[in-house]
Amino acid sequence: MTKNTKVNAAILIIGNEVLSGRTQDTNTSTIALWLNSIGVIVNEVRVIPDIEETIIETVNHLRQVNDYVFTTGGIGPTHDDITALSISKAFNTKYEIHKEAFKILEAYYKLGEFNEGRQKMVWMPQNSRLILNPTSGAPGFNVENVFCLPGVPSILKSMLGGLTNKIVGGEPILSHTINLRTVESEIAKSLTKVQDNNIDVEIGSYPFFQAGKIGVSIVIRSVEKSEIDKCVSEILIFIDKRKIEIIKR
Amino acid sequence: MTKNTKVNAAILIIGNEVLSGRTQDTNTSTIALWLNSIGVIVNEVRVIPDIEETIIETVNHLRQVNDYVFTTGGIGPTHDDITALSISKAFNTKYEIHKEAFKILEAYYKLGEFNEGRQKMVWMPQNSRLILNPTSGAPGFNVENVFCLPGVPSILKSMLGGLTNKIVGGEPILSHTINLRTVESEIAKSLTKVQDNNIDVEIGSYPFFQAGKIGVSIVIRSVEKSEIDKCVSEILIFIDKRKIEIIKR
Repeated sequence: MTKNTKVNAAILIIGNEVLSGRTQDTNTSTIALWLNSIGVIVNEVRVIPDIEETIIETVNHLRQVNDYVFTTGGIGPTHDDITALSISKAFNTKYEIHKEAFKILEAYYKLGEFNEGRQKMVWMPQNSRLILNPTSGAPGFNVENVFCLPGVPSILKSMLGGLTNKIVGGEPILSHTINLRTVESEIAKSLTKVQDNNIDVEIGSYPFFQAGKIGVSIVIRSVEKSEIDKCVSEILIFIDKRKIEIIKR
Repeated sequence: MTKNTKVNAAILIIGNEVLSGRTQDTNTSTIALWLNSIGVIVNEVRVIPDIEETIIETVNHLRQVNDYVFTTGGIGPTHDDITALSISKAFNTKYEIHKEAFKILEAYYKLGEFNEGRQKMVWMPQNSRLILNPTSGAPGFNVENVFCLPGVPSILKSMLGGLTNKIVGGEPILSHTINLRTVESEIAKSLTKVQDNNIDVEIGSYPFFQAGKIGVSIVIRSVEKSEIDKCVSEILIFIDKRKIEIIKR
């Protein structure tokens, strides 16, 4: 594991559509890459159904064992959008109209379009801070260390930029990848030695099969560039240089 | 929720590469769709790092509260492949060479190619039953209600067919989708009534934004075809028929 274990997060995907296999989650990868870039390690991801009791229990567990929790899904206008109510219950706070959110959506929609369905989206836990939504108006919200984002990937993506200054991360996690035209078993023994020599660095080995090509990606992760460089040089000693396809930072 | 809550499963994705955002998990969707087709509901998905203690704790929790647990990842030849050892510890059984797996891989590889790295892949919890791998030889394994599969999506996919007769599911979960050119807030109120009238059916509402088109997918899920049909007819009453894009079962 990397040294930087001080700032960590959990991602909680709320939605029956992911559990049924109907929807392919991509938000995990989006959030994780963004968090890594600001020095936050993702410890755990969970996908759970739209069941109030499950949301409450899971949020209350995750927020106690992680610095940050990011939820996705369940903040829209329909009956299956129960994240805001569930978070209110998790924090034992009132579920009420957020005045600022109301004003934002009142201004966002044309006269007469801010109907009952849409008004549901301004009901939030008391004292929520808003996460602004530059794409479709309806904000997400934040209570203590829990940040609630929508499930639609393009909207979620557009909201992360505005969140960056609300998250206090550690040092950014650096990553270095070596793609080799080989198979894992050819390098397994030597790579184990490099890992054993460098226990503060996270070395992963991932086979790939793309467009008829077989290979292995060796991924080296750490907050210390010098430690990554040390591993890379130790790896370059034992691998066949002709098999290197690409090295990328 | 659907009535069929008797047979359920958890999916456990083991791998730092998913938590870092580097790898986009697709195995959840693959396994969930297959499980649904044989009458097994996915209750929960977790993604955890390659840390022995975390794997042991998580597997021991999930296998007690679910009928089945499916793990992916960590059964290859490299140092970061620690699933088999961790599962042995979770079940408090010996971690040893599986004779049948040894024979399979000895026959699979050419003379001299069944090296130390590859031999790691035949170390399994004592008394594991094999999950055959028609793609790349190395089998997965099964201990009690825990099924361990590889992380590479194409290989995993090829192994599910051979598993079907080892899983005793309930009635298949049926699904019906109505795609509408509308927005969620237009249908939210009426859809809530249909859900309230049909509490044993799971009705989901999912906005989509594809190729410049905005719409909502209403997904109705149940093990009872008649209950789905009842919901569909109640929905067809309130929606604007001209906005129906597609109805699919």
